[in-house]
Amino acid sequence: MKRASFAGMNCAVAQSLEIIGEWWTLLILRDAFLGVRRFDDFQARLGIARNILSARLDTLVDAGVLERRLYDAARGRSDYVLTEKGRALWPVLNAIRQWGDDWVFGDGNEPLELLHTPCGCYTHAVQTCDECGEELRLEDVRSVPGPGLHDESFLPRYAATQ
Amino acid sequence: MKRASFAGMNCAVAQSLEIIGEWWTLLILRDAFLGVRRFDDFQARLGIARNILSARLDTLVDAGVLERRLYDAARGRSDYVLTEKGRALWPVLNAIRQWGDDWVFGDGNEPLELLHTPCGCYTHAVQTCDECGEELRLEDVRSVPGPGLHDESFLPRYAATQ
Repeated sequence: MKRASFAGMNCAVAQSLEIIGEWWTLLILRDAFLGVRRFDDFQARLGIARNILSARLDTLVDAGVLERRLYDAARGRSDYVLTEKGRALWPVLNAIRQWGDDWVFGDGNEPLELLHTPCGCYTHAVQTCDECGEELRLEDVRSVPGPGLHDESFLPRYAATQ
Repeated sequence: MKRASFAGMNCAVAQSLEIIGEWWTLLILRDAFLGVRRFDDFQARLGIARNILSARLDTLVDAGVLERRLYDAARGRSDYVLTEKGRALWPVLNAIRQWGDDWVFGDGNEPLELLHTPCGCYTHAVQTCDECGEELRLEDVRSVPGPGLHDESFLPRYAATQ
């Protein structure tokens, strides 16, 4: 059964999920951020069927999130490397990891920790406002219509946040 | 075709996706953050089949991300409201929205903008270190084994980041 598409939705979450929301795709990106580049390494780590992995990698290359870098011209083999657009997904992956650590594994059971090398501490990301520098808390933000909104009804009258 | 499960994976990204990674689920959560609470409102906004919506809401309730709040005892009707665990997903949704604005819609075409009410500015979230307060940049972080890591090979020898 073919899934529905979010492509027609005038929403940045939906449009992002159209690229990264497929089952497996965020784990492929997780491994790319861990430095995995080779098809066979993704396949071995994820235990994913080769045809599905190939399709997901093609989607990410077509979307400009990964790029192929030829490493064996004779055999036509390429690495898959994050582009600038792909590296910009790091806050998404990091926020997902952090929620899993906080709410699924719990304190003291984290499989991985994140070392912030400039300060030498294990770090937790805090979302802060790029204007005033304060922490962004859900109760302090409101979603408002932007220049690209086509249908005002997308934002419910009672909307208090994003 | 039943999809594979990430349940056995010792990874916070995989465990989080086991809860929020289903097709539609992040859009249900998006709408919950926009203030949608009623089954029929989710259904009308998303255009999703009622049985699929019902299954996704049940999964989120079972995972403790949403809770049912009875609003019509006579008819047994409940709202679906984010719990504390659910509200903790806001950085994930916000990071996804922001990436879509930056890399899919582009500057000046954002469907929604985020107003930070204490400072009165349209805001973009910046990930900062909870220890030193500096911006977390991908090149300044390293993923290292945590107390809950069962298999060191999960972290490739060449891993430089998460």
